[in-house]
Formats: sequence, structure tokens, C-alpha cells
Amino acid sequence: MRSSEEYVKTLRKMRKNVYINGELVERDCPELLPSIKVLSKTFDFAEDQKFRELITTKSHLTGEVINRFVHINQSADDLLAKQRMIRKCCHLTGGCIQRCMGCDAINALSFVTYEVDKAYGTEYHKRFLKYLEFFQRNDLTAAAAQTDVKGNRSLRPHEQKDPDLYVRVVEKRKDGIIVRGAKNHITMAAIADEIICLPTRAMREEDADYAVAFAVPADSEGVKLVTHVANPRPRKVFKAPIAEFGFADSFVIFDDLFVPWERVFMCGEWPFAALLAHGFALYHRHSYTGCKPAMTDIITGAAALVSEYQGIADKPHVRSKLAELASVAELVYAAGIASAVEGQRHDSGNFIPNTVYANVGRRHAGLNIYHESEILTDLAGGLPATLPFEGDFVNPETKQFLEKYIKRRKDIPVENVHLCFRLLSDMLCSSLSGVSAVAGVHGGGSPIMEEIIITATYDFEERKKIAEYLAGIRDSCV
Amino acid sequence: MRSSEEYVKTLRKMRKNVYINGELVERDCPELLPSIKVLSKTFDFAEDQKFRELITTKSHLTGEVINRFVHINQSADDLLAKQRMIRKCCHLTGGCIQRCMGCDAINALSFVTYEVDKAYGTEYHKRFLKYLEFFQRNDLTAAAAQTDVKGNRSLRPHEQKDPDLYVRVVEKRKDGIIVRGAKNHITMAAIADEIICLPTRAMREEDADYAVAFAVPADSEGVKLVTHVANPRPRKVFKAPIAEFGFADSFVIFDDLFVPWERVFMCGEWPFAALLAHGFALYHRHSYTGCKPAMTDIITGAAALVSEYQGIADKPHVRSKLAELASVAELVYAAGIASAVEGQRHDSGNFIPNTVYANVGRRHAGLNIYHESEILTDLAGGLPATLPFEGDFVNPETKQFLEKYIKRRKDIPVENVHLCFRLLSDMLCSSLSGVSAVAGVHGGGSPIMEEIIITATYDFEERKKIAEYLAGIRDSCV
Amino acid sequence: MRSSEEYVKTLRKMRKNVYINGELVERDCPELLPSIKVLSKTFDFAEDQKFRELITTKSHLTGEVINRFVHINQSADDLLAKQRMIRKCCHLTGGCIQRCMGCDAINALSFVTYEVDKAYGTEYHKRFLKYLEFFQRNDLTAAAAQTDVKGNRSLRPHEQKDPDLYVRVVEKRKDGIIVRGAKNHITMAAIADEIICLPTRAMREEDADYAVAFAVPADSEGVKLVTHVANPRPRKVFKAPIAEFGFADSFVIFDDLFVPWERVFMCGEWPFAALLAHGFALYHRHSYTGCKPAMTDIITGAAALVSEYQGIADKPHVRSKLAELASVAELVYAAGIASAVEGQRHDSGNFIPNTVYANVGRRHAGLNIYHESEILTDLAGGLPATLPFEGDFVNPETKQFLEKYIKRRKDIPVENVHLCFRLLSDMLCSSLSGVSAVAGVHGGGSPIMEEIIITATYDFEERKKIAEYLAGIRDSCV
Amino acid sequence: MRSSEEYVKTLRKMRKNVYINGELVERDCPELLPSIKVLSKTFDFAEDQKFRELITTKSHLTGEVINRFVHINQSADDLLAKQRMIRKCCHLTGGCIQRCMGCDAINALSFVTYEVDKAYGTEYHKRFLKYLEFFQRNDLTAAAAQTDVKGNRSLRPHEQKDPDLYVRVVEKRKDGIIVRGAKNHITMAAIADEIICLPTRAMREEDADYAVAFAVPADSEGVKLVTHVANPRPRKVFKAPIAEFGFADSFVIFDDLFVPWERVFMCGEWPFAALLAHGFALYHRHSYTGCKPAMTDIITGAAALVSEYQGIADKPHVRSKLAELASVAELVYAAGIASAVEGQRHDSGNFIPNTVYANVGRRHAGLNIYHESEILTDLAGGLPATLPFEGDFVNPETKQFLEKYIKRRKDIPVENVHLCFRLLSDMLCSSLSGVSAVAGVHGGGSPIMEEIIITATYDFEERKKIAEYLAGIRDSCV
Repeated sequence: MRSSEEYVKTLRKMRKNVYINGELVERDCPELLPSIKVLSKTFDFAEDQKFRELITTKSHLTGEVINRFVHINQSADDLLAKQRMIRKCCHLTGGCIQRCMGCDAINALSFVTYEVDKAYGTEYHKRFLKYLEFFQRNDLTAAAAQTDVKGNRSLRPHEQKDPDLYVRVVEKRKDGIIVRGAKNHITMAAIADEIICLPTRAMREEDADYAVAFAVPADSEGVKLVTHVANPRPRKVFKAPIAEFGFADSFVIFDDLFVPWERVFMCGEWPFAALLAHGFALYHRHSYTGCKPAMTDIITGAAALVSEYQGIADKPHVRSKLAELASVAELVYAAGIASAVEGQRHDSGNFIPNTVYANVGRRHAGLNIYHESEILTDLAGGLPATLPFEGDFVNPETKQFLEKYIKRRKDIPVENVHLCFRLLSDMLCSSLSGVSAVAGVHGGGSPIMEEIIITATYDFEERKKIAEYLAGIRDSCV
Repeated sequence: MRSSEEYVKTLRKMRKNVYINGELVERDCPELLPSIKVLSKTFDFAEDQKFRELITTKSHLTGEVINRFVHINQSADDLLAKQRMIRKCCHLTGGCIQRCMGCDAINALSFVTYEVDKAYGTEYHKRFLKYLEFFQRNDLTAAAAQTDVKGNRSLRPHEQKDPDLYVRVVEKRKDGIIVRGAKNHITMAAIADEIICLPTRAMREEDADYAVAFAVPADSEGVKLVTHVANPRPRKVFKAPIAEFGFADSFVIFDDLFVPWERVFMCGEWPFAALLAHGFALYHRHSYTGCKPAMTDIITGAAALVSEYQGIADKPHVRSKLAELASVAELVYAAGIASAVEGQRHDSGNFIPNTVYANVGRRHAGLNIYHESEILTDLAGGLPATLPFEGDFVNPETKQFLEKYIKRRKDIPVENVHLCFRLLSDMLCSSLSGVSAVAGVHGGGSPIMEEIIITATYDFEERKKIAEYLAGIRDSCV
Repeated sequence: MRSSEEYVKTLRKMRKNVYINGELVERDCPELLPSIKVLSKTFDFAEDQKFRELITTKSHLTGEVINRFVHINQSADDLLAKQRMIRKCCHLTGGCIQRCMGCDAINALSFVTYEVDKAYGTEYHKRFLKYLEFFQRNDLTAAAAQTDVKGNRSLRPHEQKDPDLYVRVVEKRKDGIIVRGAKNHITMAAIADEIICLPTRAMREEDADYAVAFAVPADSEGVKLVTHVANPRPRKVFKAPIAEFGFADSFVIFDDLFVPWERVFMCGEWPFAALLAHGFALYHRHSYTGCKPAMTDIITGAAALVSEYQGIADKPHVRSKLAELASVAELVYAAGIASAVEGQRHDSGNFIPNTVYANVGRRHAGLNIYHESEILTDLAGGLPATLPFEGDFVNPETKQFLEKYIKRRKDIPVENVHLCFRLLSDMLCSSLSGVSAVAGVHGGGSPIMEEIIITATYDFEERKKIAEYLAGIRDSCV
Repeated sequence: MRSSEEYVKTLRKMRKNVYINGELVERDCPELLPSIKVLSKTFDFAEDQKFRELITTKSHLTGEVINRFVHINQSADDLLAKQRMIRKCCHLTGGCIQRCMGCDAINALSFVTYEVDKAYGTEYHKRFLKYLEFFQRNDLTAAAAQTDVKGNRSLRPHEQKDPDLYVRVVEKRKDGIIVRGAKNHITMAAIADEIICLPTRAMREEDADYAVAFAVPADSEGVKLVTHVANPRPRKVFKAPIAEFGFADSFVIFDDLFVPWERVFMCGEWPFAALLAHGFALYHRHSYTGCKPAMTDIITGAAALVSEYQGIADKPHVRSKLAELASVAELVYAAGIASAVEGQRHDSGNFIPNTVYANVGRRHAGLNIYHESEILTDLAGGLPATLPFEGDFVNPETKQFLEKYIKRRKDIPVENVHLCFRLLSDMLCSSLSGVSAVAGVHGGGSPIMEEIIITATYDFEERKKIAEYLAGIRDSCV
């Protein structure tokens, strides 16, 4: 396993292909530092005695100790451990731990390539296992590039006026394929070792060129990463972890990218595009049942803290709101547990989360994102929005007044009150908080995507039979 | 194990102490038949090849095969099996299977008597085990009488003007105790073998006389059961299971009831009243994670069916609503799974469900009861409310017109449409449906009760620490 | 103006064409009495000094004093008075006052016939005015028969397999037309003098035969009224107004009904079917901004009363729920006020409510129906579902115990507690309460119907311009 | 009336007492410019032919033409005009127009001083009228400083450990009073001519020193304004109005401020503190029924626009969400109309909005703030969060790719798509958007404050009587 220093050293060596606000930047530029700090934690924790047991496991391939973020889940316990690990990690970085993307991508590829081979007699799975060994041995990080730019949302890939609005194979060569198109909203692409490209949806025969999956180094020729960073507001004086971590999403452009065959995992097998798209989404939504409760934990903690400081923690309406936050977190987490417990083993060795539970969990989280901010706002009052800037808490002409007047309960030090409201301000009124909210709704598939999967996979027929039986339309429903 | 015939035969032999609408009735009177039909199923299923495996298990006490409804849960798997069994049973009776009450009561007594003995050196647990053996050997049913009438809700038991507004011990004799008071909303008391009385809340020292638990035969001298029956609207021609099952709730009056010591399981140990009250609620709320999803399954099935009949099943807003119903059912069920998986073994041998998950699950169910009816109403349109009565579907002067005009999709037989809307009418516009809705909110503890438990037991401190760490108020949160 | 006695006398004279549960009944049969009692109030109030001013006005046609329920609204003040009158009436009958249907139908016909004539040179408006004079002079009541049975909801009228699934003209004769089809959910048809038939939706050219409107006496040859009555549960001992009023909805069958030309108000002018359908819906939805707040008032009152009795009226969560109920009532009522104030005068003399406000008001009411019951259930606890029957409150063996144990606050007489919970039981757990809830959602157009009208009529373009201006896409938005 | 140039010139002349991030700044510093631009519009519009009629009126005091923002409302029409004016103004500045604060403060002072004088024989009203004349003649702007810092929320003013945690009179002199304390969240204080200080809540006798109201020039000795600016993210290339307007909230510190008697409007008359606090809140909440619909209009427009661009504007779920946004805006606006129409004239000449309608309107707005952002996020997808920075749309290495790949419908110019998403990004993912959301919940009183007023003023007794009548507890309810 790598150390975080080794990871950062690798980043430094990579070819420059990251653009931020008009500049071609180095991967360890200040704008990307808050994101790098997040990913670094996934390496640090593996060396930390308190986390090691949770965050490391044995490779089913090599038997070696690996980071759980590069592991193929082999059992319900693996899924439960992953869920716990993610929740823990997110607590400590105050947000998305990011690295699960790559983990979820390799898990999906692992069983889908197996299925494709079974149907087509192809060799994707063998290729994948080789890639996996390389991936695990080098303790790599990967961005999963799934969401196409999609152009007109009411048209399928091949119907778009510009055929490149979904990523497609424009040429097949002896040694590999040429790929063109773009993926957007790709978190951590600018700080990842690898980019794993996956189809975004079910495809029909006419869309066969769009049924493509592969992995490339993130700095490959032919890859451009136009990157939006969502960084915390810098703190000059009143330092805090919340102000250290951020994330970076890239518009990933494949400008006639060449991919050698050994890194191609799907190429034209359109009937399996859906399985891969949904397979990744399924593992990723299960991951969300770990990270979303963590986000809610942070909100719950902040809400409980500010209520305590304000002297209202024992008011019934406050307690009711705290119970509501707890309920959101634990229902989502429970759905993840159920998804693991009711999951099933696949012939490839993968343990696959239960679809319905992963989706109802992710959906419930997505539906509550803005409502959770609303609760926090409600309990915090207006100060997160109007808190004077750091300088005024330093300037002696104003410091004394501010410290006098933001005082709440007499037994709570005013420094704590100040730091608490600065946290709340970052959580509610920063650019990063806005980005997190949007990501909370759409990342990993917005609630409407989960509804589509639920509608497609839930056993409504069984329930109709129960209704028919009770109505007297059929004699039995068992 | 008893057959349902034996169960009914026992009922017939019992002393008359059930009052309905001014009459003292036999236990097998027509008014109670729909309730008896429900409980009978729990005996029939144990003899049914398709259910036997699920609904029977081995007694940890005697090693004999027993009905799971009289079993003390020994493992997470027991809890999972109970949850599955309840969901299945409720599908087939179109509603509350009722018998879980007694099961949850004995489970609570099992570990709480153990704890009381440990603290007080009493012999309640030994007594209880003897009672349990009797209970299991005779395959008994019991109503759990918990909810006191409570008088002025802002006063504690001993503060009430009339001291009997909570059930209390008025005399301790050599051979037993004399109990006075009343419990209300006690489902199945009128058709149960036994009544198990439990405290409804935490008590203080002044309330010691109110900390009392015991079991008595339901027809004991000194017990009066004033009973409200919630029965389906009778069908003369268009028979259907939905119109066969009902339930009966009793106002249970203890009119200076004598209870021999061997049937007394708490008597004055006020510091444990809360544990027993919450212990029962905990097992019962876990049971709700089985029955509430079943209720939602029935609504989902009816909603899917009527949408299909009307020709709107593929409309996006319909699919979205069906996905919402599925989400309610499966989030609640997932909470039950998590409560089992994250439960823990008690020294007494009991396996105790996890509190937080059982409570967030029951709360989520309770918060959605009316909303589920709303969705069903939305998809069904107005006909459940205005469907002509049976007679008009028989009368040749009107039959032809009604059958012509309730026709929906041409490939759906009109009989099915008729039966479907009659089902919907029963589900939405009957007295029974109203009672079910109220029971869905309050039975087993209304959402506000779960909020109180969540607030009291959730680890808010851990989450505050996370917030303090992220705010820079403390250095670490692990 | 008629007295209620005269109204009932008229009913008695009518031809028997009402069917209830297989029987052909008289109009003053016991099943219809609770409905008749409601309509009777609209006559009684006109003679009641306390209401006369509100419920009577001057006919713009004849200058004579008439009941406001037969008036064509001439001003915003007329609409405001109608709203106030309906709210008041519904308070006193505990539910839908019913008579507004006919009033809204004549208001719609008044301006739509004018428009049709303008476009087609027809004489519908003149005919209508003659009919109106007859209607006002005789102080008539009319059921508005709008909702067709509609068969497969995804097909238009002429696409249905059976062409009669929407009401249509099957023959035009010299002296009149022959009409076939059925309307359902038609409230008060069985106790009305007249039935006014209106199209249910927009029509296309192929649906021209379905663009038909007319008025006939409710007992005409060719009309059959298969009627569902939603009556209160009878009280033997503990009488109360809530248990006296009900309503009756008919499946109205036009079995080749003949309508003379002087009573035909649209016949084939398909481009105006939408205006008439929406015109009626518009007036009716404005009426709902009077009756729905009244329904909420009753729920609010019951909720406040039971909270007071239970000793919890001053708890914050109770106050918050009461405030929520008040907000629902007053937002809907405010929408009605705004709809009146922002309405406009039509060339025909009609004053037409503002469409957007009437629709957002009705939608808000419809979206809250089940939620209001949920609040009431929440505050009332379980007793509305399990209250012993009347007989047990009379039987001396049980009376004393029930009266002892339903006691709440010591200063509230137990009789009041009993009557209060019996009211709540009727409001939450009766067949009638279920029917009211469904009617509350769907009557006058369910929320989705309002969304369709809002989407069709709201000025989204103006708002897009504002967004374009703020985005820098256009220079100005004024 | 002043021009905006004159207004800015005045600002420049004021004493420096504004602190931003540790610096003592000039009032026309770059940080305050976006706020100044907003207020300037209120002067510009008065000179703009398109707005003049709406935004000017006649002073009831002097008969001269004045800006409506300095007018005392004399009629329902005045209130309706104010509501319309505010909605319009907010459209054009993309947010809070700010100046209504001062307007609402003078309206409250106008009738409350009258009432105080009537009770105490004081001369506050005369003083106020003199001040009003000065205020109108000079076309002034004022910040209303109401919200105290409040310390421990569970303690009353005089119970706080530090007596200065609510603003109070520390000394009464012959020529005036000395005031100490702080108000926070005071919008526009840093760019206003005047600061009008009002009590924040009801007071008891012990809190008499806290019952104080006055007006002072914003740059008075003894006033310090520690200011938080919420400014839009600067645009270098792609200019747009949304990126020009901002707002500034101050922590207003009264450091033993001297106020001459002629500017004191309450001083110790504690029984009237509530009336003044609520009177201001009432006028201000009525103002919110103008500005909140405007905010919703902007969201609605942006939502409709992005849906159109993405090719999904005709999807049912999109239309449903647009209808929901429209409903929020129009219900709130309707409540404002009803509040005006049902308002009443006060002896002082003031026309006072109806309390219940103003409060249910403001509450409904507050409850929907986060939900509206949620809808916009839902329809916009993830791009508002991940949109590359301006520079990348200029850099030729990336420009071509971005423009190729953000293309949506082929008939929508890519520039528009870009500007639309940049607008959305500012509306959802900027610091300003977070501040606006918090302000939307808490500004003018959060929903819980409205619930308190509703609970205190709504006629629950009348509704209880209706319930008692229907229950048979009382004979009549009229």
C-alpha cells in the first residue's frame, strides 16, 4: 500500500492536462490541494492503528493485504465493512471521501465483464483481472467517468444532432480503439491515477458504438480535464478542519483518445450497457448509504451543538428536529445494511448488494438533502448568514464588541460560539455548501433515477396478486 | 400446538365478560367472528406446508416445536424470521395479525424480570419461566394491556385527581395482589386466552404502586372487556377476503382484580417500569417493521392494479407514486433488518432488537400512513367513494348500465374492475379503514413516542464531537 | 323563494328513478334524508334573520330578491359574498353544502353560451337566460353532471371501444336531441330539481358529438340515478348535528334521454367544450375556497377542543399543529379572496374569478386533506378508533366504568369528553369520513387537474424573461 | 425625491463607522457597491416612466409626491400597490430590494406612537410626525434595527448575565437618552441614511429599560457597523445583472449612543413593546408577500428556462414541478392581497394589514425556501455545481470543447446555455445563494415566529364552538 506522500509524489509526475479557470495547472497546485487532502486520508488511515482493521482487507486475487478501496467485495460482511468505513472517513473529512468511485467501478466491471464473456465468448474478464491486479498492487485511485453530457435529454445517443454528445468509439484498430466525447461532473478526475470510463445508460442496437468501457491513466494523451474546484473559504486566523477539505469535478474530454485493447472492457456489446451502468450505480448507491449518513451525522452534530450553545437543546421542537435528522441518517444506513444482508453472491465471486434496498436508501438520502439544511438553518438562526468576517474578530476596535455580543449561554466559551457559527456559515452559506447540496441530490443518480430502477425491479406483480386475492379476483396469492 | 378449531372451542368455554354496544356477549358472537378469523390463521398456518417452516420453531425452554408467536427470540435470525412471518401473515388477512402483541409481551418480560431479579433479588424471572412453559405448551394467545387511560395528560399517575386513572395495586395480600384501573385500545383482548398487563411509562418513586405487571386469563373475575369491533362492511354477493377479517379493541377494566403471586411479574419496582414499558415497545416496534410493510404492500398492489385497469400504469407520475409506496415499505422493512442484525444478546438468553433502528422504522411507517391512503386515492379516482351498492350490481334494471359504464381497459373483465373498486372502497371509505389509519399512527406508539426514544438513546454526543472537531473546537473526534 | 318544506314537497312528487342498493326508492326515503337535510338548510337560512343578508341578493335579470345559490355573480363583491356564505353554511352542516354545484353550472353557462353565440351566431345565450329566469323564479337546485365515466383513461372520447363512455348526442331531431352515456360521482343528483349536463374536457373535431350541454328535470324519462349514500353513523342516544347530515352521489345514466332544444346549451360546438368545462371548474374551484376552509375550521375546532380536554393545549407541538391547520384554511381562503379581487368582468355581465388564484387555492386544499386528518389523529390519540359503542355508555354494568375512565381534565364534564370523542370518531373512523376525504381530493378536480390548468395558464414566459434578463441573455424584462 | 446619484453622494459624505473584515471602510467601497446598486434602483425607478406611477404616491402629510418607500399606507390600495411594487423591484435586482425595512418601520411607528400617547399622554406621535416629514422630504432610507443578539435564548432580557444582550437605555438625560447594546442581521445598515431601532419582543415590567425605540443617522457617534457583505461572484467576461447585486448585513453596535429626545419614540412604555415589535413585523411580513413571490418568480423562470433548453419542458414531472413553484408564489401573493383587502384603518390614519393573512403568507414562503432550491436543482441537473470557470470558456484550448459539449437542444445558442447555467450556478452554488436561503427562512421572522403570532391571534374559540355544536355539546355556534 502507498503512503499519502507517495500518492502525492505520483501526482506531481503526471503530464499536465488539468485546466482551471483558463490555466493549465500542475496537479499539486493550490486549487487542488483541498481535494488532495481528502484522498490522502484514505492512505493515512490505512497506516493509522485506529482505522487499519476497518480500512484494510485481503485481496481475493493475491491474498495480500490491500486497502478496502481497491477491494472486490466478496461477502455481505465486506459490504457492511465498506459502508462503515465510508461513514467514518467522511466524518473526518467533513464530506465526500471520493475514492469509493473507483472502488465501485472495479466492482461493477468485475461481474459484468464475466457476464459479457459468458454471452459473447469475449475475454474482458481476464483482461479485467489483470488490470485489477495492477490496480491493487499499486494501490491506485480511479475516477469513474460515467455521466455523458447528453445534449438534448429527450433524444437517445445516436439521435443527437452531434453524435459525440455521448462518448463513443470512433475507430477500432488492431492495437486498440479511438474514443471521442466527454463526461462531466467527474469528481476527483484531476487528482486520480486512473480514469475508468463506463456507459451511462441502457443502449439499443443503433447505439452500439456508445457501449464502451475502458480504463486509462488520467494524464493520457487525448484526455483533457477542465476542472471546477469546490473549495472551502480560506481561513486566515480561525483554522478548522472544515476549511481544509474540498473537491474537484472535471469535465473530462476524450479528444480522440487511444485505448489499447488490454484496457478495453466493453466495446459494442450494447445489450450489456445497462448492466454495467446499473451495476456501477448499484455499488455506488450502496456506498452512498455510508457517506450520506455521515453527512447527516455532521449536520446532526452541528445542529445539536448550536442548540446547546443557544440554550434551546431541551425544547420539544428542537428535540423533534434532532430526532428527524437521526431518522434520516439511520434509515439510509439501515437500507445499506439490508442491501448487504439481502445481497447475493455472483458466479464471478462478487457479492452484489440488493438493488431495491440500495435504491430506496439512496433515494431517501437524496430527497432529504435540502430539508436537512433547512433544519440546520432553522435551529441556527440567522447568524451563519451574517457572521462578521475573520478580520473583525481580530481588529481590536470591533473584537471586544463581537465577543461580548455573540455570547450565548454563560458557561460556553465565546471562542466556541464563534467557531461553531463559522462552521455553520461554511456548512450553509458557502459556495462549497451549495455544491455539496447539488451533489447530494444528483451524485450517484438523483432520486428520479432511483425511482426508475425501483419501478423496473420491484416485484409489483407479487403485490398485485395480494390485492387481487384480497379483492376476490384470484383465489390465492401464495 | 393447537388447531384453530381447538382455539375457538376454548373461546366458547370462557366466562362471559365481553360487552359490545350494551350487550354481554359470547366470545364467538358474530361481531367477534372477523377478529377470530384473523387469529385462527396463526394456527392454520402452522399446519400449512407452505408456512410451517417459517411459522414454527423450537422452544429454547423445552426443545419442543412451537409456534413462533409464543417464542422468545434467541438470535438475529429469530428476529428476521419473525419479521418475515408477520409480513406474510398480514398479506393474507389484509391487516394486523394481532397475535404479535402477546409474543412481544413475553419477550419483554423475559429479560426485564431477569434484570429486576438481579437488582432486587426477587424471583420474577423464575415465575415467568414457569408461566412461559405453560404459555408455550398450550400454544396460547395473549393481549398485551399497556396503554393506561391517563386522565389529564399533563399529570403523572399519582398526581391525577382520581388515582385509578393509571392501573395500580390497591392491596397486597399473602396470596396475591388486588389491582384497579383500566387500559384502553387493547386489541384482541376479547378473543385472547390471556391478558398480560404492563406499565405504560417510566415511573417515579411516588408512582411505585403503578409499577405493576402480571398475566391473567382474559375471563377472570374482576376483568370486564368493553369492546369496539372494527369489522369489514358485509358482502352479500361479491365475496372477498378483504371483507372477512376485522379486529376488536377493548377497554379493559380491572375492577379490583385478584392476581395470584405466581402470575405477578413486577410489583412496586418502579425504577424498572421504564425498562419494561420500553422493552415491550421495542419488541413491538420491531414487529411493526413486519406488519407495516405488509400494509403498504397491499396498498401498493391495489394502486398498481387500479392503475393497470385504468390504463395509466405507464404514466411517469403513476410510476413515481408506486416507487414512493415501495420505498416506504422497504425502508421500514430495512430498518427491521438492521434492528435485528445490529441487535444484541442479553444474559437472559433474549436477543434484543437494536433500539434506534426499530424506532426509526416504526416512526417512518407512522408518518406515512395517511400519505399512503392519499396516494391510493389519487390513483384510484373518485369511484371508491361513490361506487353503487352491491344490490345495484344485481338488480337487472341497473346491472347492465353499471357494467357498461364502469368498464375501463377493453381487455380487463368488468367483474375485475368491479371487485377492484369494491376493494378500494373498503380500503379507503369504510369505518374499518378509518380505524386502521388511526391504529397505523398510534398503535405500538405514535411517531412522537419514537422521537422521544430516539432523542433519549441516540448518540448525539458522538455527533457533536464530530462537529466540534470539524469546527476546530476539539482536536479529534475518534 | 321556496321554504325547505316546499322543496321537500316537490321532491315527493317526482317520478321514481333513484336506485339504492337494488331498490327503486322514493326521494324522501330514509337513506336520502341526511342529504335532504343539508339542502334544506340553504332554504332555511334565507329565512333566518342571522343569515338572510348574506344568503340573499338581487337578480340582475329580474331585480327580485333571490337566493345567492341561484345568482349569476356580477362583481368581485358577489364572489366574496358567495365564498363567505359557503364557509358559513358548511360550518353548520358539518360538510359540503352541495348546492353550489348548480350555482357554478349556471354561472359557467351564462358566459360560455354568450361566447358560443358570438362565434357561431347561435341562440344559446337567449335560451339560457330564459332557463335562468325559470330557475331563479322557482328557487331551484341543480346537480352539475360533468364527470364522464371515461373508460380507458389514455384514450379520447371517440377512441374508446364503446363510444358511449363519454356522454354524447346520438340523434338530432327537430324538437330536440337524444343523449346517451353516463356521468358519475354526481353529488345531490338524487335530491335535486334539475340536472345540468356539461362536457368534462376539451374536445377535438372528431369528438364533436361529445360537445354537449343541457338541463333536464332530474326525474326525466331516460334518466336513471343509481345512488350511493354516504350517511353518518346513526346515533340512538347521544344525538349531535354531525350525525344528521350526509350526502348522496349518483351514477347518472342517460338512457337515450330526449332533451328539447330550449334546454340545450351546446351541441357540437367542440372548440368551446374546453371553455365550458373549465368555466364550470373555475367557478366551482372558487366555491371550494369557501367550503374547504370550512372543513378545515371544523377539524381545527375539534383539534383545539380535544387538546384542551386532554390538557395539552399549551404544548408547543400542539400549538404548532393548530397553527398549521389555521394556515391551510386561511391560505385557501386567501386564494379565493385574491381570485375574486383579481377577477374580471365579462361582456355577458358575469364576473369571472381569476383562474390562477382559484386553482392554486383548490390545489392547496386538495393536497392537505389527508394531512389534516393526520394532524387530528395525532392530537386525538387512539380513542376515536376504539371508543365503545353507545350501548355501553348506557348499560349500567359498564357506564360507570367508562365514565370514570374516559375522564380527562377534572374541570371538563365527562359528557363533553364523550361527545367530543364520538365526534372525532365520526370525523376519522366512519365510512362517511372516508368518503369525505376522497371527495376532498377529487371533488371539483383533483390537484393534478389544477396543475394542468396552472401550467396551461400561468405566465411562465414573463418569468423566463426575468431569468433571461438576470442571466444576461436579454437586456430587459419589462 | 432624490436621484440615485444624490443618494450615493450622501453616502460618501458620511462619517466612517463601517467595518468589513478588519478594515474601517468608506461607504462607497467596492464591497458595498453591489448593495448600493440595489438601493439605487429604488431612486432610479421613481424617475423611470415605466415605474413612476407604481413607485410614487402622495404624502398624506404634505400632499407632495413621494417615493412609496417613504409613505404611510392609507388604504388597502396602498398596501396592494406596495406589494406589487416590491415584487417588480425584486425581479429587477434579482433579490431583496431592502428599502422596505425602513418603510415598514415608519408605518409601525406611526400607529404605535399614537396608541402609546393615548395610553400615557406622551408626545411620541407628534415627534414622529415631525421626523416623518423630514424623512419624506429628504427621501431617506432607513435600516430597521430590530433583532437583538439575545444571549441565552431561554432567558428574558433582564435575566441575562450580561444586561446588554438586549438593547437598553442606560441613562436618561435632559436632552436625550444613552443607549447600549447590539442588534444583528441588520440589512442595509451600512448603506442607509438612518437607523431606526425597535424592540424585538414583548417586554415585562422588569424589562422596561429594554422597551426603547428611536431613529439616528447611521453614522452617529456611538454607532459601529460591523458588516458582512453577501456579494455575487464577480464576472470577468460573461457579465449579467445577477452578478451585480448583493446585500450587506451589519452587526449594529450601540456603544453608549446618545439619542436626543426628538428622535426617541418609546422609552420605558413596556406594555407597548409587543405592539411595536409585532406592528413592524406585520408590515414587514406583508412586504414579504411581495418579495418572496418575486424570488419564486426568478426560480420559476430559471427552472422553466433550463427545462426548455434541456428539452424536457413538456415532461409531466417537469410541468408538475413548475406548477408547484407557481403555487408557492401565488399562494403567498394571495395571502398579501387578502391581508390588504381584509386590513383595517387605524385612528392614526394608518391602514393596517390583516395579521392572520400576512402571517400565513410569510410562513408559507419561509417553509418553501429550501424546497424551491431543491426543485431548481432537480430540474437543472449537476452542471450548476460543476460548471467550469469563466477562464476555460475563453481559453482557446478548452473553449471549443466546452461549447461543443454543453450544447443542449440544437435550436438553442450555446451562449444562452452557458449563461443560463452560470445563472443557475450563482443561484444554487454561491455564497450569496446560501445567505439568501438563510435570509429567506429567518428574515422578517422565521416560520416559528409566524406560528406564534397565528396561535396568539387566530380565533380558535370560534372554531371550537363549531366543533362543540357539531358534537352536540352546545346548541348553536352562531
